[in-house]
Amino acid sequence: MNSLDRLITLFSKLPGIGKKSAGRLVYHILDTDPVYARTLAEELNALHSAIKRCTRCGSFTETDPCPICSDPGRDTGLLCVVERAQDVRVIEESKEYRGLFHVLGGLIAPLEGVNPGDLAIGRLFNRIKDDGVREVILALNPTIEGDTTALYIQKFLNEKFSDNINGNKLEISRLAQGLPVGGDLEYADRLTLSRSLRGRIRM
Amino acid sequence: MNSLDRLITLFSKLPGIGKKSAGRLVYHILDTDPVYARTLAEELNALHSAIKRCTRCGSFTETDPCPICSDPGRDTGLLCVVERAQDVRVIEESKEYRGLFHVLGGLIAPLEGVNPGDLAIGRLFNRIKDDGVREVILALNPTIEGDTTALYIQKFLNEKFSDNINGNKLEISRLAQGLPVGGDLEYADRLTLSRSLRGRIRM
Repeated sequence: MNSLDRLITLFSKLPGIGKKSAGRLVYHILDTDPVYARTLAEELNALHSAIKRCTRCGSFTETDPCPICSDPGRDTGLLCVVERAQDVRVIEESKEYRGLFHVLGGLIAPLEGVNPGDLAIGRLFNRIKDDGVREVILALNPTIEGDTTALYIQKFLNEKFSDNINGNKLEISRLAQGLPVGGDLEYADRLTLSRSLRGRIRM
Repeated sequence: MNSLDRLITLFSKLPGIGKKSAGRLVYHILDTDPVYARTLAEELNALHSAIKRCTRCGSFTETDPCPICSDPGRDTGLLCVVERAQDVRVIEESKEYRGLFHVLGGLIAPLEGVNPGDLAIGRLFNRIKDDGVREVILALNPTIEGDTTALYIQKFLNEKFSDNINGNKLEISRLAQGLPVGGDLEYADRLTLSRSLRGRIRM
């Protein structure tokens, strides 16, 4: 196996990249200025030592705490719970949210051996208790695992903060489900349509 | 811009990889054992120095001449002309072909400034003349550029070898065009269908 084949095998281990596209990538890199391959190699080498997890929210960062957790302009009363560190980026890019984040590190999936104890739910509880959080937004994927996890966390937090927190009741919300913007009614699945009906908004 | 963003930008320069998939790849690499990132970096660093072009056929190789050109079991009378080095791999994987290859390095596309003089057509002529080639198979993409290039090479070779070569007339063929195996008549486009009709095979 030569250098080319080894690189194709490595690339084909990445998600969504099969043997064919891996080949296309490697041949493209071969056809490109060697500087590109060298720069990519350098960045890959540095990645794991440069990027750590924020000890507060669990997202990937070069500094600890991360720029979001240490930004004094953020609303510390608002906590957005996401499955994975990369979800932080997605929500940040919407430029709609000015609170803090909390990365769970997964979703409850008993069949795959992921139980509530494997997720950062205990740390979530501590952050809410200690940091004066008013509202928790559950921004989990609209899948069975996401819905299960959201329900579990909602029940867990409602029990823990049954009376009130810092004088107020803790609010728990989740992202709205419905038609994607620019989507077409005709192509919406039954479940999405029924959720968009149930969650309809008065105009 | 931190290490993560720089790597995402680099990955999104690869063909078929947008900003979103680049993010997915980088986060996946972050979640994976650092050994993977290091190995990938090493292979990328070594790629351009390890892989050269074969001076005979023009394909990518670690040794010159390449393993195919130096394989004594190959039929040297058969020459398969392809557009790019990666096409050699595709044809090799079919395990149907036992001759040699010739990489053109592109297709004739006057609008993009690629003229016959930019392709390895002169070298093709020399190889046919010197190596006793009986048949040239034009394995170019079934596109306008591919068909134009195939026609050009056919005319060029027919003129050059108008009488005969090494006692025999040079045969020139091209890959059959028609329905892809497992395809559906209903979804075949008009041109493919008309070519599969014209090229129909008696049973």
